[in-house]
Amino acid sequence: MSTHQLDKKSQAWSALFSEPMSELVKRYTSSVTFDKRLWRADIEGSLAHAEMLAAQGIISAQDLEDIQRGMAQIHAEIKAGTFEWKLDLEDVHLNIEARLTTLVGDAGKRLHTGRSRNDQVATDVRLWLRDEIDATAALLDDMQRALVHVAAQNVEVILPGFTHLQVAQPVSFAHHLLAYVEMFSRDAERLADLRKRVNRLPLGAAALAGTSYPLDRERVARTLGFEGVCQNSLDAVSDRDFAIEFTSFATLVMVHVSRLAEEIVVWMSQNFGFINLSDRYCTGSSIMPQKRNPDVAELARGKSGRVVGHLMGLITLMKGQPLAYNKDNQEDKEPLFDTVDTVKDTLRIMAEMIGGEVAADGSRAGGLSVKQDAMERAARRGYATATDLADYLVKKGLPFRDAHEVVAHAVKTSIALGQDLSELPLATLQGFDARIASDVFEVLSLTGSLNARNVLGGTAPVQVRAQIARHRARLG
Amino acid sequence: MSTHQLDKKSQAWSALFSEPMSELVKRYTSSVTFDKRLWRADIEGSLAHAEMLAAQGIISAQDLEDIQRGMAQIHAEIKAGTFEWKLDLEDVHLNIEARLTTLVGDAGKRLHTGRSRNDQVATDVRLWLRDEIDATAALLDDMQRALVHVAAQNVEVILPGFTHLQVAQPVSFAHHLLAYVEMFSRDAERLADLRKRVNRLPLGAAALAGTSYPLDRERVARTLGFEGVCQNSLDAVSDRDFAIEFTSFATLVMVHVSRLAEEIVVWMSQNFGFINLSDRYCTGSSIMPQKRNPDVAELARGKSGRVVGHLMGLITLMKGQPLAYNKDNQEDKEPLFDTVDTVKDTLRIMAEMIGGEVAADGSRAGGLSVKQDAMERAARRGYATATDLADYLVKKGLPFRDAHEVVAHAVKTSIALGQDLSELPLATLQGFDARIASDVFEVLSLTGSLNARNVLGGTAPVQVRAQIARHRARLG
Amino acid sequence: MSTHQLDKKSQAWSALFSEPMSELVKRYTSSVTFDKRLWRADIEGSLAHAEMLAAQGIISAQDLEDIQRGMAQIHAEIKAGTFEWKLDLEDVHLNIEARLTTLVGDAGKRLHTGRSRNDQVATDVRLWLRDEIDATAALLDDMQRALVHVAAQNVEVILPGFTHLQVAQPVSFAHHLLAYVEMFSRDAERLADLRKRVNRLPLGAAALAGTSYPLDRERVARTLGFEGVCQNSLDAVSDRDFAIEFTSFATLVMVHVSRLAEEIVVWMSQNFGFINLSDRYCTGSSIMPQKRNPDVAELARGKSGRVVGHLMGLITLMKGQPLAYNKDNQEDKEPLFDTVDTVKDTLRIMAEMIGGEVAADGSRAGGLSVKQDAMERAARRGYATATDLADYLVKKGLPFRDAHEVVAHAVKTSIALGQDLSELPLATLQGFDARIASDVFEVLSLTGSLNARNVLGGTAPVQVRAQIARHRARLG
Amino acid sequence: MSTHQLDKKSQAWSALFSEPMSELVKRYTSSVTFDKRLWRADIEGSLAHAEMLAAQGIISAQDLEDIQRGMAQIHAEIKAGTFEWKLDLEDVHLNIEARLTTLVGDAGKRLHTGRSRNDQVATDVRLWLRDEIDATAALLDDMQRALVHVAAQNVEVILPGFTHLQVAQPVSFAHHLLAYVEMFSRDAERLADLRKRVNRLPLGAAALAGTSYPLDRERVARTLGFEGVCQNSLDAVSDRDFAIEFTSFATLVMVHVSRLAEEIVVWMSQNFGFINLSDRYCTGSSIMPQKRNPDVAELARGKSGRVVGHLMGLITLMKGQPLAYNKDNQEDKEPLFDTVDTVKDTLRIMAEMIGGEVAADGSRAGGLSVKQDAMERAARRGYATATDLADYLVKKGLPFRDAHEVVAHAVKTSIALGQDLSELPLATLQGFDARIASDVFEVLSLTGSLNARNVLGGTAPVQVRAQIARHRARLG
Repeated sequence: MSTHQLDKKSQAWSALFSEPMSELVKRYTSSVTFDKRLWRADIEGSLAHAEMLAAQGIISAQDLEDIQRGMAQIHAEIKAGTFEWKLDLEDVHLNIEARLTTLVGDAGKRLHTGRSRNDQVATDVRLWLRDEIDATAALLDDMQRALVHVAAQNVEVILPGFTHLQVAQPVSFAHHLLAYVEMFSRDAERLADLRKRVNRLPLGAAALAGTSYPLDRERVARTLGFEGVCQNSLDAVSDRDFAIEFTSFATLVMVHVSRLAEEIVVWMSQNFGFINLSDRYCTGSSIMPQKRNPDVAELARGKSGRVVGHLMGLITLMKGQPLAYNKDNQEDKEPLFDTVDTVKDTLRIMAEMIGGEVAADGSRAGGLSVKQDAMERAARRGYATATDLADYLVKKGLPFRDAHEVVAHAVKTSIALGQDLSELPLATLQGFDARIASDVFEVLSLTGSLNARNVLGGTAPVQVRAQIARHRARLG
Repeated sequence: MSTHQLDKKSQAWSALFSEPMSELVKRYTSSVTFDKRLWRADIEGSLAHAEMLAAQGIISAQDLEDIQRGMAQIHAEIKAGTFEWKLDLEDVHLNIEARLTTLVGDAGKRLHTGRSRNDQVATDVRLWLRDEIDATAALLDDMQRALVHVAAQNVEVILPGFTHLQVAQPVSFAHHLLAYVEMFSRDAERLADLRKRVNRLPLGAAALAGTSYPLDRERVARTLGFEGVCQNSLDAVSDRDFAIEFTSFATLVMVHVSRLAEEIVVWMSQNFGFINLSDRYCTGSSIMPQKRNPDVAELARGKSGRVVGHLMGLITLMKGQPLAYNKDNQEDKEPLFDTVDTVKDTLRIMAEMIGGEVAADGSRAGGLSVKQDAMERAARRGYATATDLADYLVKKGLPFRDAHEVVAHAVKTSIALGQDLSELPLATLQGFDARIASDVFEVLSLTGSLNARNVLGGTAPVQVRAQIARHRARLG
Repeated sequence: MSTHQLDKKSQAWSALFSEPMSELVKRYTSSVTFDKRLWRADIEGSLAHAEMLAAQGIISAQDLEDIQRGMAQIHAEIKAGTFEWKLDLEDVHLNIEARLTTLVGDAGKRLHTGRSRNDQVATDVRLWLRDEIDATAALLDDMQRALVHVAAQNVEVILPGFTHLQVAQPVSFAHHLLAYVEMFSRDAERLADLRKRVNRLPLGAAALAGTSYPLDRERVARTLGFEGVCQNSLDAVSDRDFAIEFTSFATLVMVHVSRLAEEIVVWMSQNFGFINLSDRYCTGSSIMPQKRNPDVAELARGKSGRVVGHLMGLITLMKGQPLAYNKDNQEDKEPLFDTVDTVKDTLRIMAEMIGGEVAADGSRAGGLSVKQDAMERAARRGYATATDLADYLVKKGLPFRDAHEVVAHAVKTSIALGQDLSELPLATLQGFDARIASDVFEVLSLTGSLNARNVLGGTAPVQVRAQIARHRARLG
Repeated sequence: MSTHQLDKKSQAWSALFSEPMSELVKRYTSSVTFDKRLWRADIEGSLAHAEMLAAQGIISAQDLEDIQRGMAQIHAEIKAGTFEWKLDLEDVHLNIEARLTTLVGDAGKRLHTGRSRNDQVATDVRLWLRDEIDATAALLDDMQRALVHVAAQNVEVILPGFTHLQVAQPVSFAHHLLAYVEMFSRDAERLADLRKRVNRLPLGAAALAGTSYPLDRERVARTLGFEGVCQNSLDAVSDRDFAIEFTSFATLVMVHVSRLAEEIVVWMSQNFGFINLSDRYCTGSSIMPQKRNPDVAELARGKSGRVVGHLMGLITLMKGQPLAYNKDNQEDKEPLFDTVDTVKDTLRIMAEMIGGEVAADGSRAGGLSVKQDAMERAARRGYATATDLADYLVKKGLPFRDAHEVVAHAVKTSIALGQDLSELPLATLQGFDARIASDVFEVLSLTGSLNARNVLGGTAPVQVRAQIARHRARLG
């Protein structure tokens, strides 16, 4: 039989169509320019499908062999860059299938038995995303390792902890960095949770209703490493939850990155001067010769917008769509692809900028430099140990609320005198409350304050070291 | 000692402040109008904190007793509606603490020892949200039960499955409803996953750095039923991931609801006429006397906007915030509260509208009526069994791609004749391919097509019944 | 005739309905709790409609008189707080109409002639929003006046202009504030533009198709001060562009506020210390007695999330809605109302915090304090005049790109020596380029740099004063 | 002098930098892959800048001539595709400037005098966007013309007007289409409004503070066709309002498209069958041979997500950014570019699919086919003339609210009898109200109902024709 549907796509979809698709429509609806990145998953999925078709006796062993041979050649052609992608063939799936049929004839035409592009594309995207999830998980670990590495070197370095960007209490710089380790470790938890939901097989749902061929879906799932099979065919082809859930995860990663990036930008600003970045992570100005700008951190902060934009786009896309597959769903790919690229690039570059480049032997070079003196100088401003004085009074018997008020008076006096609390004479301090004795000065020192916060999760160095040990054990 | 910080808030924050807050600022920054719904959690958290303070010897047994007595009275007052909420006291926490101090004196002032509003509010919101998560989980189960109930009554009812809202293949109406059960069951999985991350104790982080009192945070966690303790104090007070993650979950629920609602609206439209809704879920028109509108479904669909709006708001809120607590974070509450209310109300009303009101004995009354005839009439339009004909030809030896093209010709002829494929004479069918025999007519019937899709997850009644059984076992 | 539709709403919508709305549905679909704020617009719109009905002979003069009398009483009742709002009557419109009918009988029942709630609610919201637009426009002007006021006092005050939060070039603090005046003046332009599109009359569209009564829509438009009449009835009842466009405007206002707020927070931070805020705009801490936090600025920054969330919600709401009115549209109100409230409150409080409270005689008290010394000290860090040195070399004949490189060398040396460029000896400077002469030191001073940027829109004081004059003329 | 900053970018930014940018950073921060589309604007802007520099005596006439010659060659090279874009040179600006310097030497190095990339990029984007605005405006007009064209052929074609997707009242199909003309004409108004704000010149702001060269910014503005000059240099380089405002506009366009697309999809569904689309705008299925899917409409609907995502991304990007330029801003381009592409492609393809392809002589071929019979058949369902009966009773003296109730009874009876209101015998109708006479049947006909809505903006054919004439006069 000479009719060949796929080759005729440039003429018309099928005998049912009296004219070919307009060029404008072809360009508007084609996805091959961006979905060709799914090619490995598409071939892998097709091979698993073919192997099952043969095992079930739906196609012959010869057909399977032909398909495997053809796919091996296509794999090689794409890798070598010699495969010719055709816009006329709309997407990665038809491009590969048409080439297969050219290479192996009827066996190629039999590959699509019992499946549809609807379940095929859903399978491809899930296979591809699963690999990207694993790559992203590794990068999240690298990011945490970089932070833990810098933390380990700065346990005793004191910077002013801020609330409302006002000096609040002294904290260990390591403790501050470990806050971000908590955030990224929560992200990693979320990623592991959602991976389960990505890792389910849609193939076998066919167009929307299942198929009349005796497919063994569980066999295909095992071959492809899926943990389960989508249990409803209508849902299988129309579900894009996994794309939204991944993008939600990525949005939180980028929110965390944006917070860290904001701090790096602020810390680099001359008025803070808490850190420095290697030249290789900075850029200059086309006009101002003195400039060294933390471009990477700013761009990473800005890229949070890109990812949350994709999330919003995907949600809008799915809102109000009736079952089952609608063409709207093709719009899931570009945002998902760009989200994956952005979150991976950003994690990689931030980890390296903070923790330095990691050599093959695990040693690190570069990374952010800590300006300990500037941090401590800043911590000495702003009456960071006022709470310690209040706590001191509570331990001497004053109710907390009263102690708070006493210290407010002391701070007021300190401001008027232009002195820190620790610089006030004992007599002056006793004027605020007679219970104050000379042991107060230990309490008013930065180190004393730091060491005092020796509670689980607190900033005392002994606690911080325990956390570092915990993270190292966890991250390997 | 006569100084009393809380009472003086209307004059000035503390001795440090030379003038009171402006009325405009008081209104702008006050949260008591909306955060008072946290009162139970606030009292519960305070009692656990006080109990631990006493166990650790930080406050006396008498203080604890006073606090417990005072809190019992406050609990009763709030429940009775006699508690006086003061805007001047800014939020739920200060309102309750001020009242406590009025009731029990110095013990009240000692309650705040070793904690700050920063860790207190984070604890309260998590406690409150944990309860709401459990309530939402129950409603998600009810929603699934309602769908399974209607599905069980409609396994053999055939409606046209659509892709692109074009008739695709016949599907069981039960199968169609079960697609939504899959969606809501994924939502339930996500909810269980995120609950773990909500259910961690921030208390003990104090303002941002931990505290100098020997708190036993794990004891408090146990008392309050938390699964773990936040391991970094800076993160504990500034983290709002849990609010974003819950709202992401809720957004997906609402996207699913919006899809189901869209279908209900379409199915109710006279041109479809697939279902009817009870009068009690419909509204009329102020001008058009004939109207019965599916307002509930439309409003539910519209409310997806509200929830995704809250998600976007929360993400924007957190973007670029430096550590640790900033006042911006106060804006987390209203969107979170409204998200919880919206998703709960929507699940409740949709479940009832679809599955009917559930009596104490589990029986159901009302719910949507299925118009089986209209569904089947529609399924007979649009050549829904064309794929079956192609599959038939494949089984007779034609490669799928060729069979597809043969059937396209057959459909073209059918359209020209104004007949369904099943109405064409055998001779005409054989004109398209000589392999077609009289057994083709079984294949071309709706029932034949339905039964043929007997693959895991497919629409064949035997598969659908198996899924219903699985869901029933799962949902209890 | 005894049948009275509105009173029977609690029983059933109309004779067509066999059972009343469920209580759950009543609560879910009712809008009276939030839309009652439209009452003035509703009465105003109804009176204009009635007046036209009478003029066109559709109702009698007596009917009109009855309606006017009834509405006057209702107006008084609502103002006095004695009006009883009923959830059963769903919304503000039915509440008022039902009361009118109780008060004046059949004339009340005739008011709804030729209109529907669909065009009525669209009219009410537009009328209400038009007033809020005018109030917002006034607040935008106040905001600009506050900024211009502070600018006028700080023309010669130099702070470091930043790019990438790195010291770039010296700028006038006034110039910096005037950047925000530009932003808010663009907002005001946008508001004036969109007002035209809000100010069109939907009334007369009836349910969706127009009406069979000989209405004079242009008369109603004139009575209500609308600039035009919606020209298509289907569009008139289903259009919510005006809500989205207003919320887009408000989002940009809030983005601008968030940037200004971010700067205020940074400037208040001890490491910058550029400004101070009055106590009345600050809050303290429940635990740290030394704290004075810029809560208002932080909260304003955070509220940008709320408004962009409403924008996203409204867009999601309207996406994919078929014509004409759908119940989804009821969800337009809460986000729009909250957007209006938020943007007004925020503009008011930010203007006051920056420019002080304005007395009846126009004098101002309070407002932000500028710490000129800290700003100039910071400007002296970071080689802010390096570009001036490059420009100096260009004027001596070097191509700009070469001059840029020469200065980079000079800065490198300065950093190594720990000196500013202006502190290098002439001989050292000449080592970088022989063209440098003693006149270079004028160029390297902050004041010299500032005055040099005497180009339209530049930071030279003479330019800044011209801008202040222009703004004052414009703002009145 | 041999130092050449731009060529050395691959080694280090300037003498200040001790190491080159890392490859990872180069890729992360480079924008040339996407911003090269600004090349025409970049050259145009540079030429206007150079011409002014020469006129002001800042560069020589010979320099200007060299620059013009070099730029002419670069223009030719880029057009011919022979220009070599280098990632190392980061962006379109440095690529062009480096090539210019290679071609013409020192004159090329002098071009950047008095400007910075900060004002240069802002100028380029505005110039580029202005052209795209004009192209988009033309496409919005084409879209309206297509709708008016189809409307003009269908004034008397009656379809059921829906509210809540329930049959409401008969409307002219032309009237329905003209609702979209209103939406797109509002979009065109918004576009004209925002164009004013885009069309202002940032150049001359230099890095952030203006420049010390005696630039004539108004001359450059005139040369480039800008309507005005940005009045504040800090604002000029950091403002991205124009990108957000354009994307807000585009979002509303896409919301309107999504509504129209939704209707096309619903109308194409076999159960409605109101329209048909040409084969060239439809696609088939890889599995179901009978399929003809309205892919273009679905994809257009889906693409609303993409654009609203970009809007959200841009807003997030700008939220909380301090002045002046930050690297975050580089993230403005990709969303803006993709928004422009999407809205243009979508308008073009939707206009063509609806109104057909327009030949050089203005004639149209293709476009959507209207199935008048199906529309009218549907209008006869659902008691679409019930309101007319109520209005009829009002004209006979019944208050509207009472008439509404009478008709509800009549509809109830009709439903029970399975007949339309117009099919009830007069006697039966009179049983509901004795005032009903034989003239009622004219009122109950679809045509009678349509003609009756003869009010400005109503659906009566005479009104619709007047609107078509108005639109034609307006659109030319």
